[in-house]
Amino acid sequence: MGTLAEDLTARTRAFVAEHVLGVDDEFDGDVNAAGGEALRVRLQESARAAGVFAPQVAREFGGHGLGMVDRSGPLEEAGYSLFGPIATNVGAPDEGNIHMLEAIASADQRTRFLEPLARGLVRSAFAMTEPAPGAGADPSALRTRAVRGDGGWVITGEKRFITGAEGAGFFIVMARTSGEPGGAGAGGAGGATMFLVPADTPGLRVGRHLPTVDRAMLGGHCEVHLEGVVVGEDAVLGEVDLGFRYAQVRLGPARMTHVMRWTGAARRAHETAVAYVAGREAFGGRISDLGLAQQHIADNEIDLAATRALLRTACEELDAGGRASESTSIAKTFAAEALDRVVDRSQQLCGGLGVTADLPVAKIARELRPFRIYDGPSEVHRWSIAKRAVKRITSQAGPA
Amino acid sequence: MGTLAEDLTARTRAFVAEHVLGVDDEFDGDVNAAGGEALRVRLQESARAAGVFAPQVAREFGGHGLGMVDRSGPLEEAGYSLFGPIATNVGAPDEGNIHMLEAIASADQRTRFLEPLARGLVRSAFAMTEPAPGAGADPSALRTRAVRGDGGWVITGEKRFITGAEGAGFFIVMARTSGEPGGAGAGGAGGATMFLVPADTPGLRVGRHLPTVDRAMLGGHCEVHLEGVVVGEDAVLGEVDLGFRYAQVRLGPARMTHVMRWTGAARRAHETAVAYVAGREAFGGRISDLGLAQQHIADNEIDLAATRALLRTACEELDAGGRASESTSIAKTFAAEALDRVVDRSQQLCGGLGVTADLPVAKIARELRPFRIYDGPSEVHRWSIAKRAVKRITSQAGPA
Amino acid sequence: MGTLAEDLTARTRAFVAEHVLGVDDEFDGDVNAAGGEALRVRLQESARAAGVFAPQVAREFGGHGLGMVDRSGPLEEAGYSLFGPIATNVGAPDEGNIHMLEAIASADQRTRFLEPLARGLVRSAFAMTEPAPGAGADPSALRTRAVRGDGGWVITGEKRFITGAEGAGFFIVMARTSGEPGGAGAGGAGGATMFLVPADTPGLRVGRHLPTVDRAMLGGHCEVHLEGVVVGEDAVLGEVDLGFRYAQVRLGPARMTHVMRWTGAARRAHETAVAYVAGREAFGGRISDLGLAQQHIADNEIDLAATRALLRTACEELDAGGRASESTSIAKTFAAEALDRVVDRSQQLCGGLGVTADLPVAKIARELRPFRIYDGPSEVHRWSIAKRAVKRITSQAGPA
Amino acid sequence: MGTLAEDLTARTRAFVAEHVLGVDDEFDGDVNAAGGEALRVRLQESARAAGVFAPQVAREFGGHGLGMVDRSGPLEEAGYSLFGPIATNVGAPDEGNIHMLEAIASADQRTRFLEPLARGLVRSAFAMTEPAPGAGADPSALRTRAVRGDGGWVITGEKRFITGAEGAGFFIVMARTSGEPGGAGAGGAGGATMFLVPADTPGLRVGRHLPTVDRAMLGGHCEVHLEGVVVGEDAVLGEVDLGFRYAQVRLGPARMTHVMRWTGAARRAHETAVAYVAGREAFGGRISDLGLAQQHIADNEIDLAATRALLRTACEELDAGGRASESTSIAKTFAAEALDRVVDRSQQLCGGLGVTADLPVAKIARELRPFRIYDGPSEVHRWSIAKRAVKRITSQAGPA
Repeated sequence: MGTLAEDLTARTRAFVAEHVLGVDDEFDGDVNAAGGEALRVRLQESARAAGVFAPQVAREFGGHGLGMVDRSGPLEEAGYSLFGPIATNVGAPDEGNIHMLEAIASADQRTRFLEPLARGLVRSAFAMTEPAPGAGADPSALRTRAVRGDGGWVITGEKRFITGAEGAGFFIVMARTSGEPGGAGAGGAGGATMFLVPADTPGLRVGRHLPTVDRAMLGGHCEVHLEGVVVGEDAVLGEVDLGFRYAQVRLGPARMTHVMRWTGAARRAHETAVAYVAGREAFGGRISDLGLAQQHIADNEIDLAATRALLRTACEELDAGGRASESTSIAKTFAAEALDRVVDRSQQLCGGLGVTADLPVAKIARELRPFRIYDGPSEVHRWSIAKRAVKRITSQAGPA
Repeated sequence: MGTLAEDLTARTRAFVAEHVLGVDDEFDGDVNAAGGEALRVRLQESARAAGVFAPQVAREFGGHGLGMVDRSGPLEEAGYSLFGPIATNVGAPDEGNIHMLEAIASADQRTRFLEPLARGLVRSAFAMTEPAPGAGADPSALRTRAVRGDGGWVITGEKRFITGAEGAGFFIVMARTSGEPGGAGAGGAGGATMFLVPADTPGLRVGRHLPTVDRAMLGGHCEVHLEGVVVGEDAVLGEVDLGFRYAQVRLGPARMTHVMRWTGAARRAHETAVAYVAGREAFGGRISDLGLAQQHIADNEIDLAATRALLRTACEELDAGGRASESTSIAKTFAAEALDRVVDRSQQLCGGLGVTADLPVAKIARELRPFRIYDGPSEVHRWSIAKRAVKRITSQAGPA
Repeated sequence: MGTLAEDLTARTRAFVAEHVLGVDDEFDGDVNAAGGEALRVRLQESARAAGVFAPQVAREFGGHGLGMVDRSGPLEEAGYSLFGPIATNVGAPDEGNIHMLEAIASADQRTRFLEPLARGLVRSAFAMTEPAPGAGADPSALRTRAVRGDGGWVITGEKRFITGAEGAGFFIVMARTSGEPGGAGAGGAGGATMFLVPADTPGLRVGRHLPTVDRAMLGGHCEVHLEGVVVGEDAVLGEVDLGFRYAQVRLGPARMTHVMRWTGAARRAHETAVAYVAGREAFGGRISDLGLAQQHIADNEIDLAATRALLRTACEELDAGGRASESTSIAKTFAAEALDRVVDRSQQLCGGLGVTADLPVAKIARELRPFRIYDGPSEVHRWSIAKRAVKRITSQAGPA
Repeated sequence: MGTLAEDLTARTRAFVAEHVLGVDDEFDGDVNAAGGEALRVRLQESARAAGVFAPQVAREFGGHGLGMVDRSGPLEEAGYSLFGPIATNVGAPDEGNIHMLEAIASADQRTRFLEPLARGLVRSAFAMTEPAPGAGADPSALRTRAVRGDGGWVITGEKRFITGAEGAGFFIVMARTSGEPGGAGAGGAGGATMFLVPADTPGLRVGRHLPTVDRAMLGGHCEVHLEGVVVGEDAVLGEVDLGFRYAQVRLGPARMTHVMRWTGAARRAHETAVAYVAGREAFGGRISDLGLAQQHIADNEIDLAATRALLRTACEELDAGGRASESTSIAKTFAAEALDRVVDRSQQLCGGLGVTADLPVAKIARELRPFRIYDGPSEVHRWSIAKRAVKRITSQAGPA
């Protein structure tokens, strides 16, 4: 008998193998054809029955209450399948939204928004990113505005790349309530507020789906138009003008759960490739015994191990109550690149089949690729990592 | 006034910009929806009108007769668009087949097969690769057999990854006529023969399209079933049992024209990304002035320059009559990896749009990825490069 | 007040800054000119006075008794200086020998060999590696033999790359007592025994110092000749024929303490470089604000963080009593390459001074370089990591 | 019978093997102990006798008059030995100085300075680099000043990293004659002039040797103090205020001859490593047949081939009269990194001996390392390559 986390990890692994991987195998790039919302409902029912639903959600909302370190196992196992995260309700963006709402939402908001989301009754979206020159890698460029009107707020602006927007029950909308775009560097400029906006609020319209290379996200990555959307004071999440600070609260854990899920996906690619080369012969021997294959296999093992090690370090910091901005930024940046390398090498190991849908590896490559850009491109993370390092090191007594 | 090669390069660039790039922009991954065979015919008519058709084909068949070095420019320009190569009849696999037929075909075969192919009246396919455990990265594993029957040959076997098969007018089929699979290492085992087989020959059937990540190839990458296909002695290309040697003749130039075309595609991704970052601001300046963008831009320039330099070295060797096995293997291996890096960095530079179809970069990434596997995975090339190097160096007077 | 480990870390940092870094600054590549054995004695006295001596040694022998995880901090701080490890008695090979003797030595051996070593009264050497075709990356090739004679053993063979041999008080000699060289793959072949051999035993002779690129190792890396060396039964460490197994006991922890020390050295290079670029201007701004410098700085931070994270994962496994063969192999391989990259980037950041002795960075590069080869070249580690992965993955239920 | 270039290549190879490699083998890091100036004289006499002296020098000065492309072979062969370049008078900085003097010097200067230098009667130095905050990677920061005095110029300033200074017969000194340091970006600011200054001119003093990691440079890398050095108008090389332009003339070819020489050195490391692994067994086979060794060998071949290909492209541009700023910058940047990788992999292949002086590989690593910094750090080259690319691409008709 292991710990609860170990137990959930093992059971999630079994659940995914039995109930979810088959969906991946059939998946041809059209998530609605794969079942869409009905698929989600069906998979979540199976997950509840298997006792693996919502490992990270508080027990009062039907989850298992695992902290960041403890949820790593179940989320990696869920991520082994493209549809595992939605099945166990640990997928983006809902998982990050649940995390933030647990930390910030009022009692009323918990009842209206958090609980149904945590229980899988609705999906949600996080509406921060905007088309250029608005908020992107540089959030301080935020241009969507909310202005106080009669008994509430009027929100106007354009959002883009809003994950899961189509079919979401509600949106967490980031809007500027003071200050000007680009005021003070990345994330620095004050003046943003988060609003909880039901999807059927007049003036909120989900527009075009961005034609992204990843295809498995239920609800897509969409444009969202906010044209004079009116909400009451009770729509304010937390306090006015603290939106950027709350975004930071969401950010660290959300980065890490992304890493957990993608580690599972990359592991599937790796295991697929190893099984493939161990079962083939070329040039007079098993491919898995050829040195150039061994190099790829070993590098995959190293990249997976380093990803998990960085992940755990950052999660411990989060579990201890830290913001963990630096450690999650480092872990996310390393992981996004390392896991891409793992999948890329796996493709090479599978030869021609590595670039077809006959094995799951190419699909995983397609879904994973954007992770080096989503949640902050590696380049922006490096810029901020470097700035922190220069500040930290030059403020010490001179080391040289 | 430049040389003919320079002139054709400039005109191909203009032709592609005017007549072909629009097709790329509309292309959503379904080559038949994009026009299929009719699109090919229409584009080729435009190319003839523009005087840029078949730069590499002998003048007697309506081409411009450019050698390997000289065709590099026009083929790079054609490759700038996904549909440029088919438009100017320099695409795979026809271009490689034309090259081989020019070198080996009998007078009768030139009339029946080469001329219509060179003039764009039909397409062709090269049927060598087989499902495991047949011929793949290791050609000596060839299992398709041709046996002498009454007045001809009977060919039986399974082929896979046969590029352009659907709709091809004829196939160049590689079949074993002596020896056993795996006899003597890569390419070593004698006993293969090439046959020219019209597509409507009884027993030849184009099967399933491999669901590859690349989508722009007219005719796809298909399974081809050969069930007692009967052909006459006049179907033998060159001499019996010399098929592996001829494959080598085809191989070097075909590798290099692949590199030419993909250099164009990667250049488009790079230019798109540079134009994108030069037109955007973030963190208080043009993105193109940010150091982390400059690193990507410079590395792209270096990778493109090194690719072209290696290409040219190998093409000169081919133009001088050499087999160029080593230099084309090195150039192909380097280029496939370098061009992938160029496109990958271009995606990063474009941020979120780098992983959507709103810019051409992600499409190019998808189409280019298999080049590290097609025509020999990088790992197999490295293996053979290393073996040659050990042999060459240890046969010199001891250098150390 | 922190934990003992935190406290020792802080105090070691202060000790090194005050008493040891000055030795580095004067060090010109001749360890005897730097003081040799007298320097060691002097530094160790200072370390005892500062209460930072032997953090990893059992309390009964005058140490602080820190486990693997806990010793990471003090050893990284010691490694910040090239002479810090010898000062606090945590240097190779003594630290690894102490660890193994604590685990295996008899009561009498503890008194005669372990205690004086742990207290810094003598140095020691571990004599396993042999000139080709003997034991190297492949230990099973061991050719030095010990045969039973009258009341003891007679050892004959040639050793090479024996670290710290010149001036060592005793040697732990690995010799074949059964089986044949190369019998059963890496480390597999039984038949090796470890012997404790005082340096003044007749027949044992320290020969030539290998002219290695690293220069700071007291006692060098030497050839050791064993010509009919006679020892008694009490010289056998542990049991006869279990030498390879004991070597594994030594191996994991010794790999990890190497990583700890070199992490400190690499951190010094990094901090030196950051301080350098933060204090210089070029092209109209601080170099540390230039993007290409930021890339190096960020990559250094990522590599250091990933090294520490992998190190900690492996050390926890060791502290829990595991062999940790896989996790220490992965951590060592990653760290040796990552730390080299850190130092290399630091050299680039320092420009011309990065390749002179005017800053400590180039010295650190020289000392660190062999770590990718010592204790198993990265290539051999990758080979074994891959073999383990293939075995593990193919023994699971088929993952694909 | 080959061309003159081929002939000189073959003869230089033979000459180096017979007369120079033995010097390398004895070389322990002290160039004066190796023979210093007397060694140079002796080696050059042998080179003249062998007919391989000064392949790049005009025939009127006793050379063979080879252009840039043609000299690549002989210079690579010379560079195969650390002392080959000085033996055949193709070493830095003399070779670059000869090149520039041939292009710019007056008739009188040709007699007084160029001819003796070309014939090997004296050595020379190029005094441009200064300690921070003077001219370094950014030449426009030049601070040494020359002011017009009675009948000539008075030069005052500090130089650093002046290669070959100790024992040089004369210096080409770059001094500011108008404008201010840092005026207009890299190399942009006008106002520098080159002066030919005999070493015994009062006020010129060679100071400290920088303790660089490379050790084989005759005359070292020195500080040079210029304290009121008085020279006549006839000391002006070319025209006043055109120094930066002339430096560009010197720069491109000098970068390329560096690449030629270091290609030879890297090739020696590679050949040494291949011979080593082909002669050793481990894990039951020749090391050279192990895949992880093959990967290194193949990557070395690829890096060497790409280096030579980029070199040739740039040299053709130079031979055609172009400035070749971009192509030489790309070739230098790629080569410095690629050749370092070649040598680094060669060290790994040689295992423990790869980090000792028992094989030439570690020596070559030490000598080569600074090339990524000398003649412009890779980072500065990338910055300028990126700026050129952005300018070029954005000035075209928009490609995207």
